[in-house]
Amino acid sequence: MAMDMWLKEMQLEGEGVAMSYKIKETLLRKQTQYQDMAIVDSEVFGRMLILDGIVQTTIKDEFVYHEMISHIPLFTHPNPKKVLVVGGGDGGAIREILKHKSVEKAVLCEIDKDVVDACKKYLPEISCALDDPRCEVFIGDGIKYVKEHKNEFDVIIVDSTDPFSIAEGLFGGNFYKDIYEALTEDGIFVAQTETPFFLPDTVRKVFSDAKAIFPVTKLFMAAIPTYPGGYWSFTVGSKKYDPTQVDITKIPEMDTKYYTPEIHKACFVLPKYIKEVIGE
Amino acid sequence: MAMDMWLKEMQLEGEGVAMSYKIKETLLRKQTQYQDMAIVDSEVFGRMLILDGIVQTTIKDEFVYHEMISHIPLFTHPNPKKVLVVGGGDGGAIREILKHKSVEKAVLCEIDKDVVDACKKYLPEISCALDDPRCEVFIGDGIKYVKEHKNEFDVIIVDSTDPFSIAEGLFGGNFYKDIYEALTEDGIFVAQTETPFFLPDTVRKVFSDAKAIFPVTKLFMAAIPTYPGGYWSFTVGSKKYDPTQVDITKIPEMDTKYYTPEIHKACFVLPKYIKEVIGE
Repeated sequence: MAMDMWLKEMQLEGEGVAMSYKIKETLLRKQTQYQDMAIVDSEVFGRMLILDGIVQTTIKDEFVYHEMISHIPLFTHPNPKKVLVVGGGDGGAIREILKHKSVEKAVLCEIDKDVVDACKKYLPEISCALDDPRCEVFIGDGIKYVKEHKNEFDVIIVDSTDPFSIAEGLFGGNFYKDIYEALTEDGIFVAQTETPFFLPDTVRKVFSDAKAIFPVTKLFMAAIPTYPGGYWSFTVGSKKYDPTQVDITKIPEMDTKYYTPEIHKACFVLPKYIKEVIGE
Repeated sequence: MAMDMWLKEMQLEGEGVAMSYKIKETLLRKQTQYQDMAIVDSEVFGRMLILDGIVQTTIKDEFVYHEMISHIPLFTHPNPKKVLVVGGGDGGAIREILKHKSVEKAVLCEIDKDVVDACKKYLPEISCALDDPRCEVFIGDGIKYVKEHKNEFDVIIVDSTDPFSIAEGLFGGNFYKDIYEALTEDGIFVAQTETPFFLPDTVRKVFSDAKAIFPVTKLFMAAIPTYPGGYWSFTVGSKKYDPTQVDITKIPEMDTKYYTPEIHKACFVLPKYIKEVIGE
């Protein structure tokens, strides 16, 4: 009989829901300097990156997250030239960012070199743009990197793991103040900000922290099958441009699987319980 | 040590993903005439109705499904008086339908009396409107019921289990023809039509079947945490009114947790891969 192997992901810090994936093969398992990393090949979602037991990205559904975290800010800013991704060592956000011809430089600041190396080797569909000449990969602490750069980036994307992890410092007011300073005068910031259904307090705090710093603060949603609850929030903080006021008739055609100009507007329309979470 | 009990739901006919819920207590387990039924109390989602191993509805997230399957058609029709629900033995759709003052009669046609009885006893938050004088509960086969009624209902809602179950006959052209006949001359039909991410062929077929019969056919989406992929499709077939052309400024305030007039429009804006599934 063939081995029947399942990966069980204990979601929400193990508090009562778990997602299981049938696994064909474990391609890599390594304790890095920062986290327990694995790359597995699953029946339904193909290859997956797993950090500290949590599914980060999969071949089959990564397009939703990477398109939405990238194209919303980059199609809100009229001329994004320099972009920073904090985290995002898989390279998926970089791949989407470099679809924008205006972008001259995209810096990836990832703390864990092993994640970048593993994704280059095992997830080339996602990491393919990391060797692009417009991309610079910097291995280091995102908090320190952002603090050391002022008035430099048109867009900053925080593509982090969950706040109950090494990414804790990437959620909240102190970091957002440094991001504000690292942005140019009309810069835009976006971060993945967890599930309003299961973690309303986290979403509320993060949104409120961003709102205290940025003149324009908006929450948008995307449907991501492998994330808890399947419905994920992203927070945009902007110095000037309102992502909900973009003239979508001017957005050019782009090779995407989730994002469309119409989705650019619709993703900011929130179900009533999520409006209530962020007090809108 | 306390018993650590988890319900493992094999999603998508057991093909490689499963969702597990920590269970406090099994309140009911019964083999009915039609299916294996259970009511359990879970840590995260509260009480749940499970049929043939598939989670049908839960106290914590039922509002999304029941609001969206009901308010979209009922706020599209300008004056819905008589409404039929096929399936939906938990009573959640009936509860939402009866929030509309124009509704004079809502018929629930459920094949499995045991489901209605169990939901009345264990899920009163959902089934509460089944005893309303405007509601008639009819225990019987939905296909037969629809065939025997002509030009009678302003809205018909198909609130069924999955097509790989006793509900198979509730998906597809033959049934939709009978629904067309059972509707009044400006009637509207809506059905839950599964997950475009995991079951694109099912969604494509059902949508195409509806489109062959109804002058106006549209797909809308809602984010439901306990359904596979978390992002569920509903198909609207309408003889006259276009649900995307509703004047949402005229929609009155209603006690909801997901639905808003703005969501009424935004839920029809589809991610690119879903547009492609239905050929739009």
